[in-house]
Amino acid sequence: MSGSVGVALLGAGNIGSGVIAALVRSAGRYAARVGRPLEVRHVLVRDMLRPRPGVASGLITGDLGVILEDAETRIVIELMGGEEPARAYIERCLRAGRHVVTANKEVMAKAGGELLQIAHEHGVRLLYEASVGGGIPIIAPLSRDLLANEVTAVTAIINGTTNYMLTAMAQQGADYEDVLAEAQALGYAEPDPTADVEGIDASFKLAVLCGLAFNVAVAPEQIARQGISGIAAVDIAYAEQLGYVIKLLARARLVDGEVEATVQPTLVPVEEPLAKVDGVLNAVQIEGDLVGRVVFEGPGAGPGPTASSVLADVLDAAQDVVAGRAPLAFVPRRTVRVRPPEEHRSRYYLRITVQDRPGVLARIAQALGDAQISIASFIQYEVEGAEGTAELVFTTHHADGGALRGAIGVIEAMDVVQEIGNVLPMAGEEAAR
Amino acid sequence: MSGSVGVALLGAGNIGSGVIAALVRSAGRYAARVGRPLEVRHVLVRDMLRPRPGVASGLITGDLGVILEDAETRIVIELMGGEEPARAYIERCLRAGRHVVTANKEVMAKAGGELLQIAHEHGVRLLYEASVGGGIPIIAPLSRDLLANEVTAVTAIINGTTNYMLTAMAQQGADYEDVLAEAQALGYAEPDPTADVEGIDASFKLAVLCGLAFNVAVAPEQIARQGISGIAAVDIAYAEQLGYVIKLLARARLVDGEVEATVQPTLVPVEEPLAKVDGVLNAVQIEGDLVGRVVFEGPGAGPGPTASSVLADVLDAAQDVVAGRAPLAFVPRRTVRVRPPEEHRSRYYLRITVQDRPGVLARIAQALGDAQISIASFIQYEVEGAEGTAELVFTTHHADGGALRGAIGVIEAMDVVQEIGNVLPMAGEEAAR
Repeated sequence: MSGSVGVALLGAGNIGSGVIAALVRSAGRYAARVGRPLEVRHVLVRDMLRPRPGVASGLITGDLGVILEDAETRIVIELMGGEEPARAYIERCLRAGRHVVTANKEVMAKAGGELLQIAHEHGVRLLYEASVGGGIPIIAPLSRDLLANEVTAVTAIINGTTNYMLTAMAQQGADYEDVLAEAQALGYAEPDPTADVEGIDASFKLAVLCGLAFNVAVAPEQIARQGISGIAAVDIAYAEQLGYVIKLLARARLVDGEVEATVQPTLVPVEEPLAKVDGVLNAVQIEGDLVGRVVFEGPGAGPGPTASSVLADVLDAAQDVVAGRAPLAFVPRRTVRVRPPEEHRSRYYLRITVQDRPGVLARIAQALGDAQISIASFIQYEVEGAEGTAELVFTTHHADGGALRGAIGVIEAMDVVQEIGNVLPMAGEEAAR
Repeated sequence: MSGSVGVALLGAGNIGSGVIAALVRSAGRYAARVGRPLEVRHVLVRDMLRPRPGVASGLITGDLGVILEDAETRIVIELMGGEEPARAYIERCLRAGRHVVTANKEVMAKAGGELLQIAHEHGVRLLYEASVGGGIPIIAPLSRDLLANEVTAVTAIINGTTNYMLTAMAQQGADYEDVLAEAQALGYAEPDPTADVEGIDASFKLAVLCGLAFNVAVAPEQIARQGISGIAAVDIAYAEQLGYVIKLLARARLVDGEVEATVQPTLVPVEEPLAKVDGVLNAVQIEGDLVGRVVFEGPGAGPGPTASSVLADVLDAAQDVVAGRAPLAFVPRRTVRVRPPEEHRSRYYLRITVQDRPGVLARIAQALGDAQISIASFIQYEVEGAEGTAELVFTTHHADGGALRGAIGVIEAMDVVQEIGNVLPMAGEEAAR
């Protein structure tokens, strides 16, 4: 074995460049921690002709085989993004006995359990701190510091784009379309913002968190998902009057051995720590039987924070290489039932536009009562510029998702109801089922 | 080697009992993670006659020698508290080749560097997650997840008692003595509250954090320390008018290769994450070159949270025992200069009680100007029930601690000045020196 620990990168975009720059800048400190220097031996890229400042041209390759044939390369850092070929490349590296560090939430969400099993079978590690929450240490605290706990719930703001947009809507009283344009202009939102605003990105990350927190396999498509594009400025204003802010929460709970997992715009009481997480910041709240509740907050994206997490994993794997340490005991993920949204119990916020006529409120209240849904608060608003129209805002006590859906169907069919403006869950104390 | 990993406890108070209860309750899950069951083999107590519910009487011993002679005991958990004999016992266990897990902030603050060196020399680990921030994962994130960063600053609320008291003063407009009595009645403050209210407890924890964050040795007595007993209700009210809350901040920074470390009541801008940490909660904010800023928040004390951290360390050490893993590379702590408070640069809040006469403000402003201290804001208040007396509140731009101290001396000596009410640092953007 040579005097250094060989590393290869798959992908050399913004984050890859940041990782390489930090490896150069902090080489001495990292070598002291690891016991040997780290050496970048290969950088796999798709376009070999594009100039890569900061990367020696001799390191560039277009062929994964070159990396797998080099016995000195012990750690492979996957920063390509997307599902394929990233997943296949990670699998090939693991099967070839290489430790793999990845920032790929999509691969870890869709194939994490299987890849971790393959890593175990080949005596290597698959590390993925950067796949959730950018620079926030969250994977290792769950894997290590909170391991003594039975984790019962994970509640997170793990998409910076949507949190920026919802914060801007709340602070400016602006509508969705306006803040989306603003976020796009600032580079916080993509030209096609679907993955962020529809909660797809957050659902990948929540699936990763479920694997870690509960050691259960949850596929992204099992997560009940609702984006923020239906949130109106009035919803945010009404929520504020009620003492809440609207956040795109990724939530997972273990209830009676089953999992509930949702990504939804949710009313969060203003006094909750997560209500105070503004702008592009991310935060993850963990509840465990011993610790109670802990919250981790920080930058959820960007080259620096992502490089911080990627390199933490690299240093960890490199320490194992130098010490000749074997990976720890492997506990395969359990498969448990994932509850459909109809079975989730929650408090709800309802905004309903109606014709302003006598008896309307009674009919709606009746429909809710018939479904065993109890009203916690009610406010009626006039609708500006729409005479004869009123907006009714209800909050409910805890109710079953299925019962609520049924009642909403009944209410929507009423002749006096113009529109179901919004139906959103509310966070806070959960009812014992 | 037997089929279990043997564990001994030193101390069987509240936390020890919580640790034992969790080891029983979660035995199956812990065994799966470790690869073998954990077995409590000894519990060292001072008073052998006191009944210990939940502890088999055969486990109780009054003699550390019994534990050191038992080759099956691989991990010792120190929960005695206080400096001696805890420090000496930890040292004996390490020298006898036992991994040690401790919650002892005082020992780790005063002798941590030396004990870590001894652990290294004997091929064992000394783990101390529970010594700072109760259940909040903070030691391991600093040791592992943020290792790729050059950490430049640590800012923390790490004493729940004082944070509870300052929060109560802010919310109730109450004075120090009243909230202290309330905190004592609720069990949040000790009958002798000195260690908490004078910042001694926080200074131990900050010393531990300096070792981890910067890998430098800082003794508790090198930390500039000021308690909260001098904080008046009016200071909190004036701070609020200026857009700040007063928190007992433990702060450490690396500046030009030197350390500044303080525990002081500090004005924190309301929009900062740490300003929103209320009641007995703790929070630790870390700044690093890659990650930017991350914040960890949670319960800073209590049997459950402390057991959570102690057991995380125990599981970690037990995994090493089972895998036969050697400890990682050891980097001894550096000794760097710790700057005295006169050299710290900060913004300051000054409250000065004066005779309400013409020319007073000019004389004080002159004294500040002579010391090169530039005033950022100024408000004059009438003092109720004290005719002819006024209270002047200044905030300054960044100034040297020594220059400020000199100016305060000049101002205090003025015949028109009745009292220097308070001088407190202000957090927020720091000036480049």
